[in-house]
Amino acid sequence: MQFSSSLLENAVNEFAKLPGIGKKTALRLVLHLLKQDTKEVGHFSEVIAKMRSEIKFCHRCFNVADGDICSICSNSMRKQEMICVVETIRDVIAIESTQQYNGTYHVLGGVISPLDGIGPDQLNIGSLINRIEKEKTEELIFALNPNIQGDTTIYYIQKKLPSKSVRITTIARGIAFGGELEYADEMTLGRSLQNRLPVESYVSKR
Amino acid sequence: MQFSSSLLENAVNEFAKLPGIGKKTALRLVLHLLKQDTKEVGHFSEVIAKMRSEIKFCHRCFNVADGDICSICSNSMRKQEMICVVETIRDVIAIESTQQYNGTYHVLGGVISPLDGIGPDQLNIGSLINRIEKEKTEELIFALNPNIQGDTTIYYIQKKLPSKSVRITTIARGIAFGGELEYADEMTLGRSLQNRLPVESYVSKR
Repeated sequence: MQFSSSLLENAVNEFAKLPGIGKKTALRLVLHLLKQDTKEVGHFSEVIAKMRSEIKFCHRCFNVADGDICSICSNSMRKQEMICVVETIRDVIAIESTQQYNGTYHVLGGVISPLDGIGPDQLNIGSLINRIEKEKTEELIFALNPNIQGDTTIYYIQKKLPSKSVRITTIARGIAFGGELEYADEMTLGRSLQNRLPVESYVSKR
Repeated sequence: MQFSSSLLENAVNEFAKLPGIGKKTALRLVLHLLKQDTKEVGHFSEVIAKMRSEIKFCHRCFNVADGDICSICSNSMRKQEMICVVETIRDVIAIESTQQYNGTYHVLGGVISPLDGIGPDQLNIGSLINRIEKEKTEELIFALNPNIQGDTTIYYIQKKLPSKSVRITTIARGIAFGGELEYADEMTLGRSLQNRLPVESYVSKR
């Protein structure tokens, strides 16, 4: 692509560094910003820079936070005895959006994956064990993606847990709402048969 | 979407204002930036703000420029007697990328479209007429999109041109490379038959 302005070119190149944004999309975004008010674009760039420089990670659960402790951990209305273990911040946002969970989180930062060179030491597993040792944790809910890495991570953490009476669960695997039985893979369908629910509880939960 | 950090939320909202970027994509982009170095993100935001505040529009052709005159207008190697009339800056970039044109441009900023409330006064048409009156223009090439608005604009400008011997052309309409005859619309196919080329010139141009 040929630009007649280096300012434009630099801006397009910066946008094109973002994931899933090619040169053409970057140009579209930059030309859109060019049509906006200088103040507005200044605000845009300020908010982005501020986000990166001022955002913190919660000392307790490693979720993003404006201060040392995130708004979920500091919320006394939430069940601090429940910990939902997730891979990433994105999973926290996804679960929060369901409005079905009222406990706390623990963001691992990934899952154990020897092929990608990610071992337990690169993840927030030690802090999770510490947390369960110190706090009055009643339930640990694993909400990891259903694959071998996720299962390995669950198995590893379970082995490391202190000998305390903590209820350990994982989110249900099964056929998704709107999903069709005939297109479900054998593993999902098999497990959803094994873990079948009594109809009364299903209807009332719905 | 529920966020545990207002810094994150603000950044996502800013990205979601861009065209074609929804909340989920915005979150993906922001989380990507969150993984980058603070310096790099600072650079990103600086380049964007600088682009908007410092970019100028060429006084002669209304293309984007770093100074008063764009790099195309100030390039003495280019044929200053040729003016290619385009709708937007994006069209300049598209034509420059072909590396087949060595003249100058004139960016109209749109086309005449009474339905959208765009008349000749909202476009850079007056300055084009002035330019042709003052400069030694030899050829005016219209590279507007092939639709009624584009044709109206060509017709309007043609009527306003000073009585000078300027060659007026438009880019060729026809079947695109890789296009299939049977899927071409009647208008395109009809015109491409009317404006058929001698095979020798076609082969040599290719």
